[in-house]
Amino acid sequence: MSKPVRVALIAFDAFTDLDLFLPWDLLNRVGIKGVGQHPDWQVNILGSAPQHTSISGLTIPTAGQYEAARTADAVLFVSGPGVNQLLKDDDLAARFALDPERQLIGAMCSGSLLLGHLGLLRGQRATTYYTRREQLAQYGAEFVDEAFVQSGNLATAAGCLAGIDMSRWLIEQLAGYERAERVLRAVRPNGL
Amino acid sequence: MSKPVRVALIAFDAFTDLDLFLPWDLLNRVGIKGVGQHPDWQVNILGSAPQHTSISGLTIPTAGQYEAARTADAVLFVSGPGVNQLLKDDDLAARFALDPERQLIGAMCSGSLLLGHLGLLRGQRATTYYTRREQLAQYGAEFVDEAFVQSGNLATAAGCLAGIDMSRWLIEQLAGYERAERVLRAVRPNGL
Repeated sequence: MSKPVRVALIAFDAFTDLDLFLPWDLLNRVGIKGVGQHPDWQVNILGSAPQHTSISGLTIPTAGQYEAARTADAVLFVSGPGVNQLLKDDDLAARFALDPERQLIGAMCSGSLLLGHLGLLRGQRATTYYTRREQLAQYGAEFVDEAFVQSGNLATAAGCLAGIDMSRWLIEQLAGYERAERVLRAVRPNGL
Repeated sequence: MSKPVRVALIAFDAFTDLDLFLPWDLLNRVGIKGVGQHPDWQVNILGSAPQHTSISGLTIPTAGQYEAARTADAVLFVSGPGVNQLLKDDDLAARFALDPERQLIGAMCSGSLLLGHLGLLRGQRATTYYTRREQLAQYGAEFVDEAFVQSGNLATAAGCLAGIDMSRWLIEQLAGYERAERVLRAVRPNGL
């Protein structure tokens, strides 16, 4: 039996659609019959309100508050203009109270700044959306112009489609290489 | 001035998340400042109910009923197990009343079967999710194992990530090559 795995995706108002929905789809496939088949796998979208609206105007429900991320095995911050609002919140680190020793922590695009704001990027190599690179440096991180940058339990990805690399990493770490392969195969374009 | 453009994405319960959300994100970027900058561009998710729930359990609101697709410039059917329910509906063609002479019509993965059910695939080459290929043939289509198959105003794509090809085609046709390039560049992983 595989042990229970909980993944938390961190959303907010004015999130970038694809940065949430691409990992959301791929990660959920780990628990799906005929694909990942993980017996106890759960992906939850967490927020600061019962629903959040994307930059494209899509409103989705959240499954819980940010505080619930503490008990997750992996926490992925999504991106978007809404990041700016969260960066003003000085209590954010206390609300999340994440533990990078115990949890996998990742961020998409401008979500990297949230990792910086939580104090997780000091002395780390990290990537972000190119317009945000100088902001990233302010948190003591070294900007690297790569799609996916990972060290230990921490990873950042930039460019929405790099959500594929991010999802692959999370799945491999939490559910093994074979499941990651099966999930990626399930979304591959025909004929490739 | 560019003329108004309306794109309809056709959803239902038990839709495949990525097949809706990948085109949803890319298509919406055509209207975004600094990316597509189209002055009058609208993407709407249409359904048979005020909300629909994906196979991963995400509930989203719809912007209107299927009948509203008649006035769209492009209509894209998404995919998922929920397709089976719609295939039982003998009034579906009358509800949609699409016009392939005037409208671009596309489908992702198993959504191709809906095009078949609407009588749009007789004598056409088309693609679909590989488990559905024989079902596709029943509608008089020739299955082609390719990511993206297009002829005139009709296109089918298979494998969720082929939603990129589908979106590119729709954007090029409706808003030009340059906008399609800019949208695709906006989601490209860093360093590529």
